[in-house]
Amino acid sequence: MIQEKLIEREAQFFIMYSSSNDPNFYYATRFRIPEKAFYMVGDDGTELLVVSEMEKKRAQKESKVREIASLSDLGFYEKLRNEKKGVKEAMAETFIELLKTHHARKILIPEEFPSFLYQALMPHFDIEIIENPYSSMRAVKNSKEIERIREVSGINIKAFNHFLKLLKKERDADRLRENVEAYVFSLGYVAENTIIASGTRSSDPHYLGHGKVEQHVIFDIFPKCRKTGYHSDFTRTVVIDEDEEIEDMISACIEAKNKALKTIRDGVGGDEVHNTVCDVLESFGYSTLRQNSKEGFIHSTGHGVGLEVHEKPRLHEGGEVLKSGMVVTVEPGLYYPDKGGVRIEDTVVLKKHECEVLTKYKDYVRLET
Amino acid sequence: MIQEKLIEREAQFFIMYSSSNDPNFYYATRFRIPEKAFYMVGDDGTELLVVSEMEKKRAQKESKVREIASLSDLGFYEKLRNEKKGVKEAMAETFIELLKTHHARKILIPEEFPSFLYQALMPHFDIEIIENPYSSMRAVKNSKEIERIREVSGINIKAFNHFLKLLKKERDADRLRENVEAYVFSLGYVAENTIIASGTRSSDPHYLGHGKVEQHVIFDIFPKCRKTGYHSDFTRTVVIDEDEEIEDMISACIEAKNKALKTIRDGVGGDEVHNTVCDVLESFGYSTLRQNSKEGFIHSTGHGVGLEVHEKPRLHEGGEVLKSGMVVTVEPGLYYPDKGGVRIEDTVVLKKHECEVLTKYKDYVRLET
Repeated sequence: MIQEKLIEREAQFFIMYSSSNDPNFYYATRFRIPEKAFYMVGDDGTELLVVSEMEKKRAQKESKVREIASLSDLGFYEKLRNEKKGVKEAMAETFIELLKTHHARKILIPEEFPSFLYQALMPHFDIEIIENPYSSMRAVKNSKEIERIREVSGINIKAFNHFLKLLKKERDADRLRENVEAYVFSLGYVAENTIIASGTRSSDPHYLGHGKVEQHVIFDIFPKCRKTGYHSDFTRTVVIDEDEEIEDMISACIEAKNKALKTIRDGVGGDEVHNTVCDVLESFGYSTLRQNSKEGFIHSTGHGVGLEVHEKPRLHEGGEVLKSGMVVTVEPGLYYPDKGGVRIEDTVVLKKHECEVLTKYKDYVRLET
Repeated sequence: MIQEKLIEREAQFFIMYSSSNDPNFYYATRFRIPEKAFYMVGDDGTELLVVSEMEKKRAQKESKVREIASLSDLGFYEKLRNEKKGVKEAMAETFIELLKTHHARKILIPEEFPSFLYQALMPHFDIEIIENPYSSMRAVKNSKEIERIREVSGINIKAFNHFLKLLKKERDADRLRENVEAYVFSLGYVAENTIIASGTRSSDPHYLGHGKVEQHVIFDIFPKCRKTGYHSDFTRTVVIDEDEEIEDMISACIEAKNKALKTIRDGVGGDEVHNTVCDVLESFGYSTLRQNSKEGFIHSTGHGVGLEVHEKPRLHEGGEVLKSGMVVTVEPGLYYPDKGGVRIEDTVVLKKHECEVLTKYKDYVRLET
């Protein structure tokens, strides 16, 4: 895909300057590195990763990039010492020389490429900024990746059952979060910022939740597998006390989610799925962001899940066409400041003619007492 | 500091487009947000944070930025719908209009600013790329931040003692890591990629370590407090079997570390501290990176620690002048492919005339049997 893009754009190299905190960089190199490194891939398939001296041998063993060079190999320290350049400047010159040695004339850089390096390269090359091709490549998962996300999805269900059991005795949101996250960690996964939001402040979709859990509670968890780095995302709203308005909101979200799940298949637009959800919620009399409302359904219908919790595609206005192998969330929610919020979310994998729910759990959950 | 910079550069605004995964963005806004948001601060102290509609109310309550706007408030959706722009393009135009409304002519952006937005702003404003001022501000910690790092430092010691106890019965690196990290999590902290590296592969400084622990082992842990987000960094090399060469390497690192600690105070250069370490190691006959060696001491002497494990300042060639309140690591190591690696690391806080070690633990550690 990168090579096709290079040939199409008549460019010789696509480059990134990033660390493995950037999932596109990690996906391309499969190398865990805490500091930024330089990666280039050519229209003829040549690949080079430039790391510090201390990382060179490890990169040769662990990364999937064929050729590895260290900054010392490329004369970085001479620039720093003899030419008295600053670190960033010496770095930029090292990469410029490297690219010239490889006869680069036109270069593609991703949208998130750091501006200082873009500016330094500008006088030397014809540069085109493109959406990172790895973002699109990552959106479609292979069977191994799907299995990894399926595993994390199972952890979501375990964590939710654990939460429901705790909820019978414990009603402090912070203590509940602490307990659930410790449980998830003991299974080999890590969950942080798990939403356990109750009361009217649950009308802020990303409110973490503190203090007493009462009436109803949004439980939203998105753990990462510590070994593989893959995520899954799952939300249920638990009814604690009977409340017609809240239960109506939940019912509408359940109907919206299930109608959306029926439409999701290869070839459907992310915006279409979003509109399906809006249609259902509006038909129940709730307001949505597409009507410019500031309450009701005020976020997107979903997003891709993988090495990041939020990645491509977007199920929203301007969203991409969905393809077989994509893993996405569907998460209608309703938020009213005087009433609170509710949300229901599943992670699903797209097939040719349907989608498969990876986070199978009943939609309507009432706390058994 | 930002305002001084703006006035000095005759610019009206400094802007960032980032998420709270970027510690500079989090430090400026004190707002946890998983998606990218737009932050601008003016030479007159005006501050504005632009978030999606769903985050607006939470930003008003939780962030320290005075003024909050949503993308809908600023007409983003009209651009997306009526003018049929792409998401990125509509976003860029929204920010350009916003900056023009605020009479911006010259703008400062940080080095890591995304290139797509830099390119979009370029025709409309005079733009200067600067090192992110928040990186320097973050390097000097206030007393509250120091206390937070002191707390995490205590966890390092607990984790190491726990590891030493386990090591008497368990010798598998992955199982040891799993157990230590679960213990750290149960205390309210999170440690990932803890280095438990044994054998000749420990000569790669960032080799994680797998398989049987024998002869000697590098234990390097850098947990984050889940509540505060602050880190601390700590390494000891444990001698399991007697080995003169390894023990000589450890002794040299201990001497280098302790000599460096004596030089660290307000006003000393990060490069000077690094040279002190190189001097000591070279005096014992070991080679260093400053001699262009590819084995021996092949990394920097240390780095700042705070919201990131690795942040400013660098204790390395071209490193910054150290100041009171900075928290840095001092971590000499020696790495020989045929022999393995050793490393000793403390996290310390700088005072006017000295530094205080936050990770107090004896330097030479032998496994008691």
